[in-house]
Amino acid sequence: MFKINENYLKLPGSYLFFTIGKKVKEYSQAHPEKQIIRLGIGDVTQPLAPAIIEAMHGAVDEMGNAETFRGYAPDLGYEFLRNAISRNDYKARGCGISADEIFISDGAKCDSGNIQEIFSVDNRIAVCDPVYPVYVDTNVMAGRTGVYDGKTETWSDVIYMPCLAENDFLPELPKETPDLIYLCFPNNPTGSALKREQLQEWVDYANKVGAVIIYDAAYEAYISQEDVPHSIYECAGAKHCAIELHSFSKNAGFTGVRLGYTVIPKELECDGVTLHSLWARRHGTKYNGAPYIVQRAGEAVYSEAGKEQLKQQVAYYMKNARYILDGLREAGYTVSGGVNAPYIWLKAPKGMTSWEFFDYLLENANVVGTPGSGFGPSGETYFRLTAFGSYENTVEAVERIKAL
Amino acid sequence: MFKINENYLKLPGSYLFFTIGKKVKEYSQAHPEKQIIRLGIGDVTQPLAPAIIEAMHGAVDEMGNAETFRGYAPDLGYEFLRNAISRNDYKARGCGISADEIFISDGAKCDSGNIQEIFSVDNRIAVCDPVYPVYVDTNVMAGRTGVYDGKTETWSDVIYMPCLAENDFLPELPKETPDLIYLCFPNNPTGSALKREQLQEWVDYANKVGAVIIYDAAYEAYISQEDVPHSIYECAGAKHCAIELHSFSKNAGFTGVRLGYTVIPKELECDGVTLHSLWARRHGTKYNGAPYIVQRAGEAVYSEAGKEQLKQQVAYYMKNARYILDGLREAGYTVSGGVNAPYIWLKAPKGMTSWEFFDYLLENANVVGTPGSGFGPSGETYFRLTAFGSYENTVEAVERIKAL
Repeated sequence: MFKINENYLKLPGSYLFFTIGKKVKEYSQAHPEKQIIRLGIGDVTQPLAPAIIEAMHGAVDEMGNAETFRGYAPDLGYEFLRNAISRNDYKARGCGISADEIFISDGAKCDSGNIQEIFSVDNRIAVCDPVYPVYVDTNVMAGRTGVYDGKTETWSDVIYMPCLAENDFLPELPKETPDLIYLCFPNNPTGSALKREQLQEWVDYANKVGAVIIYDAAYEAYISQEDVPHSIYECAGAKHCAIELHSFSKNAGFTGVRLGYTVIPKELECDGVTLHSLWARRHGTKYNGAPYIVQRAGEAVYSEAGKEQLKQQVAYYMKNARYILDGLREAGYTVSGGVNAPYIWLKAPKGMTSWEFFDYLLENANVVGTPGSGFGPSGETYFRLTAFGSYENTVEAVERIKAL
Repeated sequence: MFKINENYLKLPGSYLFFTIGKKVKEYSQAHPEKQIIRLGIGDVTQPLAPAIIEAMHGAVDEMGNAETFRGYAPDLGYEFLRNAISRNDYKARGCGISADEIFISDGAKCDSGNIQEIFSVDNRIAVCDPVYPVYVDTNVMAGRTGVYDGKTETWSDVIYMPCLAENDFLPELPKETPDLIYLCFPNNPTGSALKREQLQEWVDYANKVGAVIIYDAAYEAYISQEDVPHSIYECAGAKHCAIELHSFSKNAGFTGVRLGYTVIPKELECDGVTLHSLWARRHGTKYNGAPYIVQRAGEAVYSEAGKEQLKQQVAYYMKNARYILDGLREAGYTVSGGVNAPYIWLKAPKGMTSWEFFDYLLENANVVGTPGSGFGPSGETYFRLTAFGSYENTVEAVERIKAL
């Protein structure tokens, strides 16, 4: 008789955004007249930039023509896209990442969930707390996290690095030694950012203890300050200890287009085996490439017109972030983030828990945010708002919150 | 110090099609004047049908417009596509599979590689021999296959079901009891097909011993005989023991578009836990949906115009299959398949091994096929040709082989 993967049953409750969706649906069915504004899930709202639309139409036409039709893509992705990434995201920043160290995928969520597979199940992971749930949940599914304690909402074999107001929502080097360290900066959910010399400390630490940093750079396009690094490879020694994940969802609005990439430098190895070769094997065996049309869309992100249009799109969302930050401060809230990231992290008022504030905001302002506790125990009493709404909705949401 | 997943190191050699690609590249660099015809990898060559191109252009336009832009897709896929699948692929065939038992993905390769994750690592798998390499390799990566014997090219914990000329290239019920049974019919690589009452025996067997059948129906569009089932759910009791995988790659030419789906009936459970809930959790945690544009392309596959155009596309490839079958028979080869599948399976002549025949064909006819031994030990001395080339190339390849 077959058996299931018992690790799946250890996962507490259901995925955060699923629960939010259910609550919102129930509320809106009970109150169909209410105009709900969603600043919860990090989904974009602006249409794709014209340069990207043009590239996609062109690629669709190619697929309809026998001479230009494309079947299976190369395992690691088309060279035109990997070259554009290497040139623009790395070489232009002084990072020597070559095209063959870049793996194209259908998004950073998949990569951040799948990357743990190439490591031993005995490896110990360290995560920020609060944290993007996918890092921990996928390690639970793999059986790497030990026993769950429902009271503290923590796993026995996970090293948590609390990110709280007292440390500017930045993790401190852990006391216990991890094998894999998940870092996401600019951070989801807190919107905090590590400066270059702070990230260098992490790289030095990882090289010292023999850990791998899985660096999620999904929000790098939102960096506005000079001393905040766009890539971990801006730090010396990072090629020996870091894997970097990139998304096109936030910088180019690809949440419904699906494109991302992962960098594994060829220097990164364990007992003579490169992690690059393991990930290449996984790509070749379990994956079949991002659609040709989507890879052409990705290439257009790096065209001159695309870059200019996307700079404006990012500025549009950051204007929202500024509006939320200023408005909530004015209303007396304690807020952070929003300067190098599209997320605003605020303290729930009047001693409310995160979910109490979620319900309060949904019912009284008809605004949907994300409860901080959904990202981990240290997120309790915090709340995340995103800058990804339309400007009009953002203004309206802030005014409603101010009027409470 | 971090450690890698040691199971990856157990994988012998590299992925079959990678090796073929390398050999072909080396040959063509040494002989740039030769016109090589590729009938190896199962990649299609005909452009996308006009109805699909039209749908994709429409969806691209929607993505460029704020009112119709789509961000994250629903976890299990858009309802418009799941409804079309339920109606056309199931209800029209008398199978009561509902839209919410269908999970949209970026292809059957990914699904067939990932599906093992929801099962215990202690489960024992059974595979046909020869077999699509992904089934076995992904179980190796998960640590489910025991020790590899390089001499017999088999894994100690895998149950092999030889498919040879003497059993019409169809598997027999295994002597040892498996937990998971991978079946792909119409078959890749042999092109053989199970009749409805033969598949019913497998369903009855699985229900008797408590095994799950992972049924890969990627080639169902090529079925030409009445008594060959298009879905395992045409068999009584299959909803209690079978997961079905579907591809859009072969019936609609989506190898470079990337779309597939997996069916998990809600009846399928283990100790009260439905496999549907586990796969839904995996989708929600590790995956972020197929692109909106691609899901609209999938919907067009089921439009009246799409169905008519794709019927012609399948007929085009099956004309190739007929030509290869007839031509090789005429030349004295022992051939099978090609009637309900786009693959022709032939015996290498003059006692050659599969790879010897590969080299022989590459060097003397400049035709690329796939060595049967790459699909498992029982594939040795066999060879696979695909019908996915252009008609002109197929005719030319057959004439060259006949002239040897």
